[in-house]
Amino acid sequence: MHSPPQNPHDLSRHDLPGILATIEDEVRARFDAREGKVADYIPALASVPRERFGMAIATLDGDVYSVGDAQVPFSIQSISKVHTLTLALDAAGDALWKRVGREPSGDPFNSLVQLEHECGIPRNPFINAGALVVADVLLSHYDDPEAALLAFMRERSGNAEVGRDEEIWTSERRSGYRNIALANFIRSFGNIENEVDAVLDLYFFQCALRMNCVDLARSVRYLAGRGVCPGTGTRVTSIERSTRINAVMMTCGTYDAAGEFAFHVGLPAKSGVGGGIVAVVPNVLSLCVWSPPLDDKGNSLLGAYALHRFTRMTGLSVF
Amino acid sequence: MHSPPQNPHDLSRHDLPGILATIEDEVRARFDAREGKVADYIPALASVPRERFGMAIATLDGDVYSVGDAQVPFSIQSISKVHTLTLALDAAGDALWKRVGREPSGDPFNSLVQLEHECGIPRNPFINAGALVVADVLLSHYDDPEAALLAFMRERSGNAEVGRDEEIWTSERRSGYRNIALANFIRSFGNIENEVDAVLDLYFFQCALRMNCVDLARSVRYLAGRGVCPGTGTRVTSIERSTRINAVMMTCGTYDAAGEFAFHVGLPAKSGVGGGIVAVVPNVLSLCVWSPPLDDKGNSLLGAYALHRFTRMTGLSVF
Amino acid sequence: MHSPPQNPHDLSRHDLPGILATIEDEVRARFDAREGKVADYIPALASVPRERFGMAIATLDGDVYSVGDAQVPFSIQSISKVHTLTLALDAAGDALWKRVGREPSGDPFNSLVQLEHECGIPRNPFINAGALVVADVLLSHYDDPEAALLAFMRERSGNAEVGRDEEIWTSERRSGYRNIALANFIRSFGNIENEVDAVLDLYFFQCALRMNCVDLARSVRYLAGRGVCPGTGTRVTSIERSTRINAVMMTCGTYDAAGEFAFHVGLPAKSGVGGGIVAVVPNVLSLCVWSPPLDDKGNSLLGAYALHRFTRMTGLSVF
Amino acid sequence: MHSPPQNPHDLSRHDLPGILATIEDEVRARFDAREGKVADYIPALASVPRERFGMAIATLDGDVYSVGDAQVPFSIQSISKVHTLTLALDAAGDALWKRVGREPSGDPFNSLVQLEHECGIPRNPFINAGALVVADVLLSHYDDPEAALLAFMRERSGNAEVGRDEEIWTSERRSGYRNIALANFIRSFGNIENEVDAVLDLYFFQCALRMNCVDLARSVRYLAGRGVCPGTGTRVTSIERSTRINAVMMTCGTYDAAGEFAFHVGLPAKSGVGGGIVAVVPNVLSLCVWSPPLDDKGNSLLGAYALHRFTRMTGLSVF
Repeated sequence: MHSPPQNPHDLSRHDLPGILATIEDEVRARFDAREGKVADYIPALASVPRERFGMAIATLDGDVYSVGDAQVPFSIQSISKVHTLTLALDAAGDALWKRVGREPSGDPFNSLVQLEHECGIPRNPFINAGALVVADVLLSHYDDPEAALLAFMRERSGNAEVGRDEEIWTSERRSGYRNIALANFIRSFGNIENEVDAVLDLYFFQCALRMNCVDLARSVRYLAGRGVCPGTGTRVTSIERSTRINAVMMTCGTYDAAGEFAFHVGLPAKSGVGGGIVAVVPNVLSLCVWSPPLDDKGNSLLGAYALHRFTRMTGLSVF
Repeated sequence: MHSPPQNPHDLSRHDLPGILATIEDEVRARFDAREGKVADYIPALASVPRERFGMAIATLDGDVYSVGDAQVPFSIQSISKVHTLTLALDAAGDALWKRVGREPSGDPFNSLVQLEHECGIPRNPFINAGALVVADVLLSHYDDPEAALLAFMRERSGNAEVGRDEEIWTSERRSGYRNIALANFIRSFGNIENEVDAVLDLYFFQCALRMNCVDLARSVRYLAGRGVCPGTGTRVTSIERSTRINAVMMTCGTYDAAGEFAFHVGLPAKSGVGGGIVAVVPNVLSLCVWSPPLDDKGNSLLGAYALHRFTRMTGLSVF
Repeated sequence: MHSPPQNPHDLSRHDLPGILATIEDEVRARFDAREGKVADYIPALASVPRERFGMAIATLDGDVYSVGDAQVPFSIQSISKVHTLTLALDAAGDALWKRVGREPSGDPFNSLVQLEHECGIPRNPFINAGALVVADVLLSHYDDPEAALLAFMRERSGNAEVGRDEEIWTSERRSGYRNIALANFIRSFGNIENEVDAVLDLYFFQCALRMNCVDLARSVRYLAGRGVCPGTGTRVTSIERSTRINAVMMTCGTYDAAGEFAFHVGLPAKSGVGGGIVAVVPNVLSLCVWSPPLDDKGNSLLGAYALHRFTRMTGLSVF
Repeated sequence: MHSPPQNPHDLSRHDLPGILATIEDEVRARFDAREGKVADYIPALASVPRERFGMAIATLDGDVYSVGDAQVPFSIQSISKVHTLTLALDAAGDALWKRVGREPSGDPFNSLVQLEHECGIPRNPFINAGALVVADVLLSHYDDPEAALLAFMRERSGNAEVGRDEEIWTSERRSGYRNIALANFIRSFGNIENEVDAVLDLYFFQCALRMNCVDLARSVRYLAGRGVCPGTGTRVTSIERSTRINAVMMTCGTYDAAGEFAFHVGLPAKSGVGGGIVAVVPNVLSLCVWSPPLDDKGNSLLGAYALHRFTRMTGLSVF
């Protein structure tokens, strides 16, 4: 009595360019100067026009679809935490999980509270505290971790131009008191091994990378491809790690709105305060959307809406 | 260069009886009197033999596979929160979400802390506080909510024998000071509308239901079937609600171990302190596993292991 | 080179009636409908005219000075926690301090947070949680604790008319969800031994007592008299306990404004949401002031001001 | 019926040398290698012999009594927070209280939790966070705040040898990650105005001062003298400020054991992790006691005992 299941991985039944165009129309109709707030803690972020909107899809078949400002580079900020986590797991193996947890934080993304209760073990690698520990791991395992991260980003995205935004890098270093506090606090528990300044330098470097939606969608294709980057056929990480990074993105990727995100979008995703969000449809495709105004949790307001519309139109939610 | 995707929903490639048998062997080899602790806050739970193990799978095609003690009824406890949420959404619609959130709690499951900071709005419907609000909604919408829940459970599981465990029901009512505290606390914020005692009665009733693995696996098939119960063809809830209930199970279904669960299992799931866990593979099947010893978060230790093994052997994690 | 010290205990150098008159003038000049908020969680408290002001001083020599509405009875609310603590220490001895702490709470007065972190041991006997444990102790040690408390209040104040305000008592019992929550929560940790309802009945009884400023000033004279009530010569409690109750009043007597109170007033004091505050000048006198509008911590706004003026004019701060 | 009050300020009835000798005997009888733990976060503190014990009293009449190792200098650590608060109030006036509160913290002394909830305003000037803000104020008001503090210490104690312990100063600068975290965290809220490094330098300087019991008892005589240093007749601070600093010492001077301290000792006091405690009997005398082993709150275990015995023997508790 149950009809044979459709293969949800068969993209041929979806008109992806048409879907992107519809989403762009819907998003642009919702542009509203009063909703959301572009990150303004440093001038270089505050000056980004709030009307920017781009979206890109990279399928496992190697196709890329994009719309709007998908070629305009922006500050990737916390999205880089996905990539550094992948590199750190590669370098340190599962021993990494002794130094950082895998639970949602249930608190604002830069909270110090849980760190104190849990003896300097950050709740997960996607809050700032956890990313600082991940950066510390990279420092311990790579001779030149900045170069290694840059090479990884360029290779994964296929864009050799990926680089650091000097202005943002300088600003964040100058005003990042809270991250400096975090790093010293973790160091006081012994969960940072290298010089605090070196850890912070690497962390501010990864946040200051500039990439566009197409770059970013491509850069996480290996998470849709069970660890293999379909463009190059390279195994980036194991099947198991790929699966698990997706799981951590689902439960921890969007600050303390992961529940809302799972509810409305239903995909593993990672956001950044630059307004970008990457998301993964396991076994099918990866996406990136960009719209600068943020909701009060720090996630792109219209970016989340665009992803919500995408899973509604395609039925590609994992749930 | 990318081979055409396999249809992950095609169960014909999996030997489900063989997989269940293997899992049972593995689990029984891990029985260890020292690991995990059977819930003992009431005698009727403490007396359940810790060696019990059952597991059942209900596919969308209507097949049921089971192993071990899958026909032995046990106290479903918090698993009932999935069913009452479904009924309450049916009764109150999305207005329910104004009275209960959808975020992981980040705190032990019966914590009062977040309730206080968030003015009596429980973080999600799967912590005790949230389930009390859900029970309050049922009381406002049904003439006889206990009868309605019992009818729902019997119809969904296809077992007309489903009923209340008298001893557990009596014990929990007598010793449930913490839940009484919770209900009165929420009432003090105005987020419980009915008499506190009536809300608690309904809550203790739902926790005291006895069902077995086969019943429970069947009872959540509609969450695998996009809201439709495949056995009867009945639409139990909308596609969207089914999807979203799965999302809430993923991020909030296993107390404050949801991140670990997503990481190791990768399926929407809901556990109970009776040692049962239900899980859903969207579009494919639903499962229930039972093993009484709990980990320190209150989830069945070997039940989680069995689900982990299941997704590893079948590749059916949503990630 | 240091002149011989004045005896600060010599009241003859102070014109107490003149000081009270001056304070009344100053307070009445500050009456302002916009400042402070009369407790309104029950109608019987909300209906008290906000312009009420009374103040009374009871010296160790047996003199009583008063001004304004000092003879008008009001709901003493939490002030009764001083008297029940005295009785409970008498009954249970220092073993009481195993069940309740002596540290400021650092949190709003009815917070559940610390209780959870500290396993049901309230921070001090002057927050609601602590007073419930104190009430539990009285229930365990007295055949009729309500009668014992009433007798104590009448004897200490010299007013045989002291009694319960029926309307307030009924309202608080009906709407006291938060206190019901607290009591059940503490019971869940095993730190309440009697029936929760009996503990709550006694607690609501003590809060619902009606007394006036003169009664209340007299009722705590034993805390100025090193444990001896100067009117009757009765030893009410030991020197050591008297000293220590004063210490607990200083650090915990005014909810989470004890630091502010010590800073501005400098006397051991206990406030109630009915707008009353009792205070003690050790070895010299006791006072009570009453003005219904409360600050955001729940202390009488003008009551605190009046006490501040009193210690400034007399130099009788303990510091 | 009440006998004329004794003048409690009349020291002639007390045999202070005899009392000190008795206390020393009692303390030495309680020396026990298993109780208390000498601060060991830096080697220079860990190496102090745990059997050290000294105590000194400085009366308003100019007399000094001492016993044991009262002339042996030790690291004053947090005791210096009393002196910097005095200087900062002198420099900035009551505007200081907009940047730091006056409430007990209710949390371990270097907690970051409350800072986060209260937007970078430390709870009081005697927790590390508050002392960092006080140091920031000194930096804004003095050309050379280290010199100013040193001059104040030398003048108040009458000991021109008071200086910095080089080893401790170097160690704390090198390992003070938690204080570096605190300072950066407060800076992120804008409540530190100067360079974070300069604030930390001053803070580590004040903690690294070496003084003995006699120096320290003398150094706070102005708090017993209503703001006037009896030795020199200098007005150090106003009566009101002197009174209020005592009040803050009472409610906040001993980390999160202020309630216990008020209960057992009943005097305004300030402790340091070097094992020293200064205390004040307003209008009468000031004291300092030193014994390195600390209780789990960070206060000198036998120092607290010695002060408790002192107030019991003399009746000089303010309560």
